[in-house]
Amino acid sequence: MDQDNLSVVVHSAGNLRLENRPVPEPGPNEVLLRMHSVGICGSDVHYWQHGRIGDFVLKKPMVLGHEASGQVLKVGSAVEHLKPGDRVAIEPGVPREIDEFCKNGRYNLSPTIFFCATPPDDGNLCRYYVHNGNFCYKLPDNVTYEEGALIEPLSVGIHACRRAGVTLGSTVFVCGAGPIGLVSLLVAKAMGASQVVISDLSADRLKKAKELGADFAVQVQREAPQELAQKVEGLLGCMPEITIECTGVESCIQTGIYATRSGGVVVLVGLGPEMMNVPLVNVAVKEVDIRGIFRYCNTWPMAIAMLASKKVDVKPLVTHRFPLEQALEAFETTRKGLGVKVMLKCDKSDQNP
Amino acid sequence: MDQDNLSVVVHSAGNLRLENRPVPEPGPNEVLLRMHSVGICGSDVHYWQHGRIGDFVLKKPMVLGHEASGQVLKVGSAVEHLKPGDRVAIEPGVPREIDEFCKNGRYNLSPTIFFCATPPDDGNLCRYYVHNGNFCYKLPDNVTYEEGALIEPLSVGIHACRRAGVTLGSTVFVCGAGPIGLVSLLVAKAMGASQVVISDLSADRLKKAKELGADFAVQVQREAPQELAQKVEGLLGCMPEITIECTGVESCIQTGIYATRSGGVVVLVGLGPEMMNVPLVNVAVKEVDIRGIFRYCNTWPMAIAMLASKKVDVKPLVTHRFPLEQALEAFETTRKGLGVKVMLKCDKSDQNP
Amino acid sequence: MDQDNLSVVVHSAGNLRLENRPVPEPGPNEVLLRMHSVGICGSDVHYWQHGRIGDFVLKKPMVLGHEASGQVLKVGSAVEHLKPGDRVAIEPGVPREIDEFCKNGRYNLSPTIFFCATPPDDGNLCRYYVHNGNFCYKLPDNVTYEEGALIEPLSVGIHACRRAGVTLGSTVFVCGAGPIGLVSLLVAKAMGASQVVISDLSADRLKKAKELGADFAVQVQREAPQELAQKVEGLLGCMPEITIECTGVESCIQTGIYATRSGGVVVLVGLGPEMMNVPLVNVAVKEVDIRGIFRYCNTWPMAIAMLASKKVDVKPLVTHRFPLEQALEAFETTRKGLGVKVMLKCDKSDQNP
Amino acid sequence: MDQDNLSVVVHSAGNLRLENRPVPEPGPNEVLLRMHSVGICGSDVHYWQHGRIGDFVLKKPMVLGHEASGQVLKVGSAVEHLKPGDRVAIEPGVPREIDEFCKNGRYNLSPTIFFCATPPDDGNLCRYYVHNGNFCYKLPDNVTYEEGALIEPLSVGIHACRRAGVTLGSTVFVCGAGPIGLVSLLVAKAMGASQVVISDLSADRLKKAKELGADFAVQVQREAPQELAQKVEGLLGCMPEITIECTGVESCIQTGIYATRSGGVVVLVGLGPEMMNVPLVNVAVKEVDIRGIFRYCNTWPMAIAMLASKKVDVKPLVTHRFPLEQALEAFETTRKGLGVKVMLKCDKSDQNP
Repeated sequence: MDQDNLSVVVHSAGNLRLENRPVPEPGPNEVLLRMHSVGICGSDVHYWQHGRIGDFVLKKPMVLGHEASGQVLKVGSAVEHLKPGDRVAIEPGVPREIDEFCKNGRYNLSPTIFFCATPPDDGNLCRYYVHNGNFCYKLPDNVTYEEGALIEPLSVGIHACRRAGVTLGSTVFVCGAGPIGLVSLLVAKAMGASQVVISDLSADRLKKAKELGADFAVQVQREAPQELAQKVEGLLGCMPEITIECTGVESCIQTGIYATRSGGVVVLVGLGPEMMNVPLVNVAVKEVDIRGIFRYCNTWPMAIAMLASKKVDVKPLVTHRFPLEQALEAFETTRKGLGVKVMLKCDKSDQNP
Repeated sequence: MDQDNLSVVVHSAGNLRLENRPVPEPGPNEVLLRMHSVGICGSDVHYWQHGRIGDFVLKKPMVLGHEASGQVLKVGSAVEHLKPGDRVAIEPGVPREIDEFCKNGRYNLSPTIFFCATPPDDGNLCRYYVHNGNFCYKLPDNVTYEEGALIEPLSVGIHACRRAGVTLGSTVFVCGAGPIGLVSLLVAKAMGASQVVISDLSADRLKKAKELGADFAVQVQREAPQELAQKVEGLLGCMPEITIECTGVESCIQTGIYATRSGGVVVLVGLGPEMMNVPLVNVAVKEVDIRGIFRYCNTWPMAIAMLASKKVDVKPLVTHRFPLEQALEAFETTRKGLGVKVMLKCDKSDQNP
Repeated sequence: MDQDNLSVVVHSAGNLRLENRPVPEPGPNEVLLRMHSVGICGSDVHYWQHGRIGDFVLKKPMVLGHEASGQVLKVGSAVEHLKPGDRVAIEPGVPREIDEFCKNGRYNLSPTIFFCATPPDDGNLCRYYVHNGNFCYKLPDNVTYEEGALIEPLSVGIHACRRAGVTLGSTVFVCGAGPIGLVSLLVAKAMGASQVVISDLSADRLKKAKELGADFAVQVQREAPQELAQKVEGLLGCMPEITIECTGVESCIQTGIYATRSGGVVVLVGLGPEMMNVPLVNVAVKEVDIRGIFRYCNTWPMAIAMLASKKVDVKPLVTHRFPLEQALEAFETTRKGLGVKVMLKCDKSDQNP
Repeated sequence: MDQDNLSVVVHSAGNLRLENRPVPEPGPNEVLLRMHSVGICGSDVHYWQHGRIGDFVLKKPMVLGHEASGQVLKVGSAVEHLKPGDRVAIEPGVPREIDEFCKNGRYNLSPTIFFCATPPDDGNLCRYYVHNGNFCYKLPDNVTYEEGALIEPLSVGIHACRRAGVTLGSTVFVCGAGPIGLVSLLVAKAMGASQVVISDLSADRLKKAKELGADFAVQVQREAPQELAQKVEGLLGCMPEITIECTGVESCIQTGIYATRSGGVVVLVGLGPEMMNVPLVNVAVKEVDIRGIFRYCNTWPMAIAMLASKKVDVKPLVTHRFPLEQALEAFETTRKGLGVKVMLKCDKSDQNP
């Protein structure tokens, strides 16, 4: 083990640096990891560009990165399910206490949760990193480190589809074909959805969505929400039971509500402006449920099962790779919106997927 | 049995008449009832005043009334669970076909449902009335006809509280202390809610709510929604898990959303204008569910159990009684907003509660 | 339309006849069907051989058949969603009344339900048959009549997997690789199960199960239930969350209980002797749920979605076909246990799958 | 604070001692408590008499006690929701790690959980005790310490009724009128059950049950299970939806299954011999769920809400009180089966309820 722990640190808006930090020691419930693959997320770029996201404000330098996988180097005294050499995917949110939310199985809602690369908590875009062992999940041999890192974005799709109740035969409308729309599509199909319609402004994104398994694609133009809702119904031959809204755009949320069948569910994944104008009478008389999601919980085991059993192929999502030393260039690539997912390779001795 | 079947019929906006109709014959699955007590609902008055509610438009004369109870006179050949002499409460919505919604236990969402006093379906504000036997529920001896008629408004509260998941120890915020807010309060307490806060503009209504068991009452003035939400939290000592919104007013819905705890539920009972401006980001990051309700389903057995076991006393809700012959005066009373619930007594030989 | 309505009628134990019956007329909510494909079920053979199944005793001649599909010839006056020429699959259970079970979405539990080929209700192994239109489901063009008929056995697997809560990433243990074990396997995989272990005494059946997608097969020998449970855990690398018991054999049920993980579910599909000796302390301390299933409800739409989207291929299950005229030979084939599923072809003009 | 920490310690079967132990120091997430009231549970007596319960075997001396409440003396550095002087009820089970069960909200199933007075974990029948702060719940001023200690047995009833789905209008059959049957009865009524039938061999216990709110009592004699089931149906006027089995006796479990309505639930609370002979075909064809329970989770907040809002009165359950110094006498009292609940008073300066 090197004693250099090169880390990608944001100091303030616009000020991103590669710097050496000490290699940490694991506590009793923790493991020390040699990081392998870390994806760059839109939120990482946002902290770099703006120094904040909503109420989360950078007050001191913070290591970025939370879509990650690595190899166990050392385990704390109380860790039994992992050993040095294990390859693991890292769940970035770790409850600091077993509060009411944690006790009820919704630990993502815990107000005191630790979360990688959300101020003031450091992320794992570095060479060596210490994490709670219970939030490191062993990867089977047939799942790569990069697939392991991609479990984080996949988890958003899993949590959305699970909150929506997607099951065998579900008809689903996904609004937005960006990365989160795409993983929602993949997960919905893997959960048994029979038909998925996806909408977006961009023909390119929709083409990608069709390649990934969307049954129908709707290119949004200047239609009124109700008109668009009718198009969706026309394509499916029925109103969808479930809408997964990944844009956060007011007219899309309206469309999603109008489109959804009586007794159905609209899941809010995309976030936009605080206030939105929505047809609540339509919600009420159709007994539609609107369900918010915040990050995810209990998704890593499901994601690993899904990847190990080859129910979904996320590998095509990785379009760029950079060694950790070139992190600034990698961030620039993401900032420009090039490709889908940029991976940083943190292990000098193994830069494979 | 008389052969006069005096009925309260709305012919068009503003045109309400008492007229004789033929006494109907029950089909194989039906029962003929001698009507006893029928409450007047705001919607009855609305059809009389406006000839329509939203998309439901009066196109031919329609008998009003859907909060009703009566006595079985005759049963159809296939009816086994009822016999002449049985006292019953009437569920006004009867599915015309066993469609997908009915098969799934949400028959209230069936688009072809028959519903008393919703155009074009006649109601039961008359002397003799025929109804599907499976939607007539035998009343135990210790439940009066008027309590039986009040099951209809109670059902809205039951359906709201059930969709909300009220259970033992729940903390509940009810917005609005009108009739529906009051029944929601009663049902929430009967389901085990430990603390209920209720809000309204009117001090009188809040006083009534306190008498009926509200733990806290908030008189709404000019507070901003977030300010009001904090008052609610202050009273309870925590944010409520559940908000039951019975006003349909935009600022109240906003208050309800801000007030609700992470992982909680807001049920939309009150209906207002089609579009509403609401804080959806707040909904999403707290993983709050917004659930619409439309009428009710599967509530009569629960309501009867509740009334028979004396878990709730709805009798004080009846403030006026008129014989059927004075129906026009009774409607006028309701239109003026006098009292809480006006009952019409349809059985000349028994005008008791 | 012929006026001959050739029908397969069981008169008493051992007495099966082909005879002509009148062509029925559809009532207002019914449709007249020209039957196309009808599978023979073990229960049909049982009524033929024994004249009864448990408390259901043949008291008058009864038409057999309940795994069926056909073409609409005529629709009753109230049927709107079907028209002559439509190809439909038939759900054999039709509630006679909207009782408490039907209202709650569990119409299969209704004590007065009509059910094809359960005494005294006639089945549909005939040329012309009348059924409630709401229980005839239009088949998409890409689903064959025989697939339509196979929805009935598939429904048992769907209902079992749904009651079990199978979802993406579930680990499932199916006890028994007979027809119901096989459809449970197919459905579990289609619902996203990541790993399915299946057990049976017969190596041939297990071979078939592996071909159909089982991840692991366990040939049962003389192991004690706990020993077998450990084998299942060994294969999966963990205890399964869900066990679907399709044998009704005491030692298998014991195995299923021991095998299931804490917090998991055992679904009882197979029926054996009334009393069973089972390890209930093990059930309690693991908080395992044991859930019975009786027939199915709300499965046809899901099955059609599953077949239309090609998530499962049931065609290989059909191993024999006979024209309706050779029904007695077909029953003899089933009685001998030859092949998997025998189909009777009822439409003289179209004997295709 | 004294430096004597008098503790009730079982050394081996039959060997119970009062001895002094050091006063512990709270860790960062812990609090130091001055114990106030601790109830004696049947399991405490069982460890004393037999040195084991099933697979849990005493291997070193262990402090008894797990039905407890006390006052906060000191809080660890990370504890924010409590402060010295707070009166708290203690949940005895504390997960040692956030494993899959804990993450899913079922921490009671965690195999590594700490549990007071289950070998090798010490209980809290002593003067000073340290516990995880998140599992100490602040008592409102209107809830006494003894009520706080009684939350532990109440929790079994809450967990049973919640797993059973008791709600407004439920009809419930409780088998067994011992302490757990009684708390199940109290909780079922508080959750809105309209009618509860309770059965027992003892007329005295049934009398107590009637006083506590049971609607009907059945004294069990030599009836066959099916006969008894019919008695229950006769009393209720319908089959109960829910059976809560608190005896662990085979014939009672059989009765419970036969008694339960189609689509209903039987919860197994009482534990008897490992193997039981039960009518599983009856379970299957009625689609009854059998649900095990193991201890409880997420019950303290609900119990406190219930006690604070006076929905239930548990005070009459305490029939004996002893100062901690007389613990051996108190244990002897419990062993003889005198009274219902024996309380030990651990705080020399305050021996009030």
